[in-house]
Amino acid sequence: MHAAVRRASLLTRSLHTTAPVMGRFALNHTMLRVKDAKQSLDFYQNVLGMELSASLVTDLLEKFELTQDPFVPHAVHESPGSDFTNYFLAFPEEGKENLSKEEKAERKFKREGVLELCHNWGTESDPEFKGYSNGNEEPGRGFGHIALSCEDVEAECARLTDLGVQFKKRPEEGRMRHIAFIYDPDRYWIELVPSGGKKGEKGM
Amino acid sequence: MHAAVRRASLLTRSLHTTAPVMGRFALNHTMLRVKDAKQSLDFYQNVLGMELSASLVTDLLEKFELTQDPFVPHAVHESPGSDFTNYFLAFPEEGKENLSKEEKAERKFKREGVLELCHNWGTESDPEFKGYSNGNEEPGRGFGHIALSCEDVEAECARLTDLGVQFKKRPEEGRMRHIAFIYDPDRYWIELVPSGGKKGEKGM
Repeated sequence: MHAAVRRASLLTRSLHTTAPVMGRFALNHTMLRVKDAKQSLDFYQNVLGMELSASLVTDLLEKFELTQDPFVPHAVHESPGSDFTNYFLAFPEEGKENLSKEEKAERKFKREGVLELCHNWGTESDPEFKGYSNGNEEPGRGFGHIALSCEDVEAECARLTDLGVQFKKRPEEGRMRHIAFIYDPDRYWIELVPSGGKKGEKGM
Repeated sequence: MHAAVRRASLLTRSLHTTAPVMGRFALNHTMLRVKDAKQSLDFYQNVLGMELSASLVTDLLEKFELTQDPFVPHAVHESPGSDFTNYFLAFPEEGKENLSKEEKAERKFKREGVLELCHNWGTESDPEFKGYSNGNEEPGRGFGHIALSCEDVEAECARLTDLGVQFKKRPEEGRMRHIAFIYDPDRYWIELVPSGGKKGEKGM
């Protein structure tokens, strides 16, 4: 169907739909494939401070009474016959920092801001594996980045520099001095934006 | 640097870092490039129910006293010399559904669950443009999907089917009967997951 026709069709129909459950969505998570789960979990947990949530992985670890070491992809199947592991990470939610483990587990598919890292087993040690596309070059352009907001971008960048994190754009580079871009271990871009907006500019 | 050495280096250093601002991050947004802003905004607003937030676009529209029609990329520059427009969309936040326009604007870089759609002008009418990679095939594999949670996946799927939305996986297909995958106008995957977890399975 021609795009314009299809669009008109969607619009017309949506106007005639009562849509009883519309608007109860939450943007729960973004999924990225990673080459090396250990390296990525180190980065997102220890460098950025995300928490590995009660997840499919930890649920399965408990179910099979395995060690709580999350680095045992060879021992845990996401589902029968699968050869990947998904890790769900998130920052503590504003106003919900002190939830119990049970309350966090209960909220994990209700909340926003979750990052799912999908590790297809073996890529970390496969010399033939070429790595994933970060989405910002051809071929493979499409996905851009995830963005983390924080109070003080410059202070974070100083800390990240000290940890050896690689920058695509430091705050002092380019025209937009209030933001930065770092690379994660798979070279995905992560934007750092001030949670209070751009200093000195109304409405930003 | 060898990956293992680099990882050890990061870990050792992070243990020695006081990290004063660590943990105040929020996963603010995910950025995807889209071919046709009109079509994508129709889909994310009218089909899925996201709201176009006070954004760079609307800020600039106000600044230059332009019409509030968001479909005027030819008239608005994100910044001098740029030829793209970014649209920021989000669902109303749980417990914050009735915020004023000013309160929403104030929260836009503090909150989680924002989707940024980047439209590079002209792709919508360029016969040479091949479209973006959705990240799930070679070349360009990397990004996977975004996921929306909702109370009743089956009811949403019925409504989306009625609207002519294309499915990658309906709930009744495959092994995982509690989730679905739809396509957005650029063929990005959108997972639909139940906010209450998988029915009948503890801990999911």
